[in-house]
Amino acid sequence: MSQYTIGVDYGTLSGRAVVVRVADGAELGSAVHEYKHAVIERTLPATGETLPPDWALQDPEDYVDVLRIAVPEAIAAAGIDPADVIGIGTDFTACTVLPTTADGTPLCRLDDFKGRRHAYVKLWKHHAAQPQADRINDVAQRRGESWLPRFGGKISSEWQFAKALQLLEEDPEVWAATERWIEAADWIIWQLSGNETRNACTAGYKGIYQDGQYPSREFLAELNPAFADFCETRLEHPISPLGGRAGGLTAEAAAWTGLPEGIAVAVGNVDAHVTNAAAQALEPGQMVAIMGTSTCHIMNGAELREVPGMCGVVDGGVIDGLYGYEAGQSGVGDIFGWYVDTLGEGHSHQSLTEEAAKQPAGAHGLVALDWHSGNRSTLVDHHLSGLIVGLTLATRPHEIYRALIEATAFGARKIVETFEKAGVPVTEFVVAGGLKRNDLVMRIYADVLRRPISVAPSEQAPAVGSAIHAAVAAGAYTDVRAAAQSMGRIERGVYQPNEADADVYDRLYAEYDRLHEQFGVIDKMSHRLRRIRDAARTTQEGAE
Amino acid sequence: MSQYTIGVDYGTLSGRAVVVRVADGAELGSAVHEYKHAVIERTLPATGETLPPDWALQDPEDYVDVLRIAVPEAIAAAGIDPADVIGIGTDFTACTVLPTTADGTPLCRLDDFKGRRHAYVKLWKHHAAQPQADRINDVAQRRGESWLPRFGGKISSEWQFAKALQLLEEDPEVWAATERWIEAADWIIWQLSGNETRNACTAGYKGIYQDGQYPSREFLAELNPAFADFCETRLEHPISPLGGRAGGLTAEAAAWTGLPEGIAVAVGNVDAHVTNAAAQALEPGQMVAIMGTSTCHIMNGAELREVPGMCGVVDGGVIDGLYGYEAGQSGVGDIFGWYVDTLGEGHSHQSLTEEAAKQPAGAHGLVALDWHSGNRSTLVDHHLSGLIVGLTLATRPHEIYRALIEATAFGARKIVETFEKAGVPVTEFVVAGGLKRNDLVMRIYADVLRRPISVAPSEQAPAVGSAIHAAVAAGAYTDVRAAAQSMGRIERGVYQPNEADADVYDRLYAEYDRLHEQFGVIDKMSHRLRRIRDAARTTQEGAE
Repeated sequence: MSQYTIGVDYGTLSGRAVVVRVADGAELGSAVHEYKHAVIERTLPATGETLPPDWALQDPEDYVDVLRIAVPEAIAAAGIDPADVIGIGTDFTACTVLPTTADGTPLCRLDDFKGRRHAYVKLWKHHAAQPQADRINDVAQRRGESWLPRFGGKISSEWQFAKALQLLEEDPEVWAATERWIEAADWIIWQLSGNETRNACTAGYKGIYQDGQYPSREFLAELNPAFADFCETRLEHPISPLGGRAGGLTAEAAAWTGLPEGIAVAVGNVDAHVTNAAAQALEPGQMVAIMGTSTCHIMNGAELREVPGMCGVVDGGVIDGLYGYEAGQSGVGDIFGWYVDTLGEGHSHQSLTEEAAKQPAGAHGLVALDWHSGNRSTLVDHHLSGLIVGLTLATRPHEIYRALIEATAFGARKIVETFEKAGVPVTEFVVAGGLKRNDLVMRIYADVLRRPISVAPSEQAPAVGSAIHAAVAAGAYTDVRAAAQSMGRIERGVYQPNEADADVYDRLYAEYDRLHEQFGVIDKMSHRLRRIRDAARTTQEGAE
Repeated sequence: MSQYTIGVDYGTLSGRAVVVRVADGAELGSAVHEYKHAVIERTLPATGETLPPDWALQDPEDYVDVLRIAVPEAIAAAGIDPADVIGIGTDFTACTVLPTTADGTPLCRLDDFKGRRHAYVKLWKHHAAQPQADRINDVAQRRGESWLPRFGGKISSEWQFAKALQLLEEDPEVWAATERWIEAADWIIWQLSGNETRNACTAGYKGIYQDGQYPSREFLAELNPAFADFCETRLEHPISPLGGRAGGLTAEAAAWTGLPEGIAVAVGNVDAHVTNAAAQALEPGQMVAIMGTSTCHIMNGAELREVPGMCGVVDGGVIDGLYGYEAGQSGVGDIFGWYVDTLGEGHSHQSLTEEAAKQPAGAHGLVALDWHSGNRSTLVDHHLSGLIVGLTLATRPHEIYRALIEATAFGARKIVETFEKAGVPVTEFVVAGGLKRNDLVMRIYADVLRRPISVAPSEQAPAVGSAIHAAVAAGAYTDVRAAAQSMGRIERGVYQPNEADADVYDRLYAEYDRLHEQFGVIDKMSHRLRRIRDAARTTQEGAE
C-alpha cells in the first residue's frame, strides 16, 4: 500500500498543494488557490489609504485559505485516501515576515491594529525599508560585524532586520504590541502543528543567525536604542534543522485540510531552497536557478567562502552538513511581463518570442540592465533601475524583448562569475521554475553562460521539495539526500551552448559589464532619479 | 487687383504648394502631393535589391510630380486667376543631393544607371556615409582646414562631401558619369527656370563653400586622389543670393504648373532656413526651431563666431548681410512616432499625451537620450543611439513617452546653451512646424529652456517663406526683410515657463548632461553596439 506526503508551496500570488508518492516522487494531484488579497501595494483594504511607493503587504488569512481549499482539492484530484498521507511540508517566499502576539495571532487580525499598515505581513518584495537597510549596513561595516561578509557584505532591505526596524521607527505602537516577529514560513507551521519553530534556512539567511547567534544587543542599540532587545524578545527560539519534525498536525489543521490528525508536519522552508531536493541538486557546485518572476540561485558548497554581493551563506541552510549559498536576481520574468504589459494589445510573450528567435545574437544592437526591480546580487541595491542602450528608430518591439531576456542572462553570468572568483566553483547550472519551458530563454542562457543547462522537469518543483522534506519528517527516509535520490528528478544537459553565439554574447556581456560598473558602482544615477521622482510625487500629493 | 506668389515646400514624404497674397501674406489655398516612392530605404524598386542599413534614397520624378499636381490644385483651391501669380519659390530638405549629367538629367533616369543605387537622390537622412565623414573630419583636423570650425568642428555624414565620396568609392562607374553633383534644392530650380544655379544657403552649409571658395584640391586629394577634382568639375558655379531671381518660368514648367511662362523663379532655398522669413524672425538672436520629425534651429547673428557642434555658420545663409547659424536635432517627432509604433494597438499620441500631461514634472523618475536617429548637434555623430535610464516595473507607457519628449527638450537646451557659451546670444525661441500645436510638448520646452516660447502661427511656414522669397525675386519688395515684415507672422510668448517645474527640469537636465558626456564623449558604447549589430546581420545574410 502506497504512502503519500503533501507539499504546499506558498508563492507571491497563490499557494499550490501537491500530493506526492513517497516511494518514487510521482506527482499524483495538485491544486492552486489564488490569494484573495494578492499583493497589497496600492491601498490598504481595511482603510482605503494609499500606500507609499515600494510597499508590498499580504494578509495571512490568505495563507490559511490555501490549507482549507487547495489541500483538499489536491487530495481529491489525486484520488487517494487521505488516511494514506503520512506528512505535510511547506515552503514559502522569504523574507516574508509578520508581527504576532505571543500565541502567534497576527496583529492585523486584531481590531486595534487591522487599520495599521505595519500590522500586516511584509512580503519579500516590500522595498520601503531601504533607509533602514542602509543604516544597518553602515553600522555593521563600521563595527566590523563578523556576520556581514556572510551576506556578501550587505544586508538586504527585504530581510527581517530592515523590515522590523522600519516598523519600530514608523509605528511604535504596533511595535510595542509585537511579541513575535516571525517568517511566514514558520508562522504557517505554527498554524499546522501548534508549535512555534524557527527553521535553519530563514533564520540563517533572513534573520542573520550565524555561528549560533543573532546580532548583538550593542549592534542593535546603535541602530536605535529601542531596537536593542529585538532578538531576545521577538526572535529568540531554538533553531530547527531542515527536514525535521515540527510536531503533529493539530485537530484544527486536520479539519481544514481533511488530513489525519497527528501526521508529521515538517519544519518550515523556503521555496527556492527546497527546490534543490526536488532537482536532485544537493551536491556542492550544483547551482539551481529557480527562474520565474524573479530568480533565486541556490547551491551547496563544501567550504565556507565569502562571496561579494551574495544573499548569504548558511551552514545547513539547504541541507545539513554543507554550506548553503544563495544569490538572486530581483526581476526576471517580471521584467518580460512588464514589457508585454507596456506594449499592450497586439503583442504577447508568444509573438515576441517567435520574432525574437528569428534574429541572430547581437543583431538588435541593444544592451540592457536588468534592474527594473533593483539588483539583489551582486550589488544588493533595490534602488537601482533598468536601462536600455542602443535604441534607434529601426528598433522593433521583439528586439527590446530579446535584449531584456539577454540582460537577465548577463545578470546570471555576473553571479556565476562572482561565485567562481570567490572560490566557490559552479559545476552545473540547473534550471527550475516556469521559464525552463521557454526554449529561447534557455538557449540564450546556455550561450551567455557558455555551459550546458540541466533542467528540473517537475512543473511544481518547490512543492515536491516540500513533500520530500515531509517524507523525511515522517521518518520514511533517513535524511533529505536519500529522499531526494528517490523522489527528485533532473535532466542533464538539455540545452547546449552554440559557440558562435557565445562569442557574440561575450562582446555584449563586456558592454553589460561596463554599464554594471558605471550605473551600479561609479555613479548611481538611479538613486538621484528616484529622489527626483519621490519629491515630485510628494509635491503632487500635497497639492491634491 | 491682388498679386500672388506660389511657395512650394519639398518635405521628406511629400511636397506642399501654397498660394500667398503678396500684399499681406494671406494663405489662400494649398495642396499636398505625397511622393509615389516616399523614402527608398529597404529595397531599390528598379531591381528589388535589399539596401544596406542607413540608406535613404528618393526618386526625383516625385519632385516634378509635385509641380504637376500640387501646384495646379493649390491654385484651384485658392480660386485665383493664375495670371495674377507673379513668381514661384521653393524650399527643400537638405542635404538632399543627386548626380546628374551636364544638362541636369538625373543619372537614375538613364537606362544604364536606373538599377544602380548610387544613381538616385541621397536623402538628407541617408546615414551610410559615416566612414567617409569620419575621414573628412580626420584629414581636415590634421590639416587645420580653416573652414572646419565654421561647421562646429565636424562635417556631417549627411552633407555633400561625405555622400559624394561614398559614391566615388562604392560605384566608380556612376561617379565617372556624374557631371554635376547638385542639391535637390537647386535641381528643382533648374527644372523650373532652365538655369543651373547654386544658392548661397546649401552651398555654404552643405557644400562647405566658405569665404568665397570650396575646400582645396590638396585636401580632396588626401581623401582620395580620384576626388581631387570634385569641386571644380562637379560643383563649381557662381553662387546666387537668397531671394534672387534664378530666371523665368520655362514653357515646359508653365505647362506642368498652369502658371504664366516667364514669371520669376526664385533661387533655391532650404525648408528650415526659409522659415525664418515666414516667422518674422530674421533679427540676430531670434532662434527658430522648426519642430517636426526632426528639428532645425536657424538663427541670424551679427558676428561670426565658432560654435562647437553647430551644423554651420554661413555669411548670408539665411538673409543677406547677417551670419546665418544652423543647428539641429536629427530625431524629435520621429522618436515619438517610433515609440507609438512600438507600443502598437491601444496607444496613440493623443492617449499618451493626455496621460503624460496629468503627471508632475519628474514624477516618472526617468531620463532619456534623444539619439534614436543619432545626434546632429552638438556631437555630430549619427552612430550614437537612444538610451533610457530609470525603468522600473512600475514604469507606465505614458511615462516613457513623456521622458522622450523631455529628452528632445534637453537636446534643444544643450544647443541653446552651446550657442550662448560661444558668444551667440539667443534672445527669443520661436517654434514653427507641426509640434507647435502640442501643448504638452510646448510647455515642457518652455520649462526646460526656462524661457517664453513664441510661435510662428502658419501651418505651412516653409511654403510661405518660399512665397516671400518669390515676391522678392519678382520685385514686389526691395528685400526679404521688407517682404517678411508684410507677409510673415509671429505670436510672442505663447507659452511661459513654470518656475517650479523648471527647477525639477534643472535637476533632470543635470542627469541628461551626465549621460550626454558619458555616452557621447567619454565612451561611445553605441558605436560598439552598432558594430556588433552589423557583424551579426552580415553573418546572417551570408548564411541565407
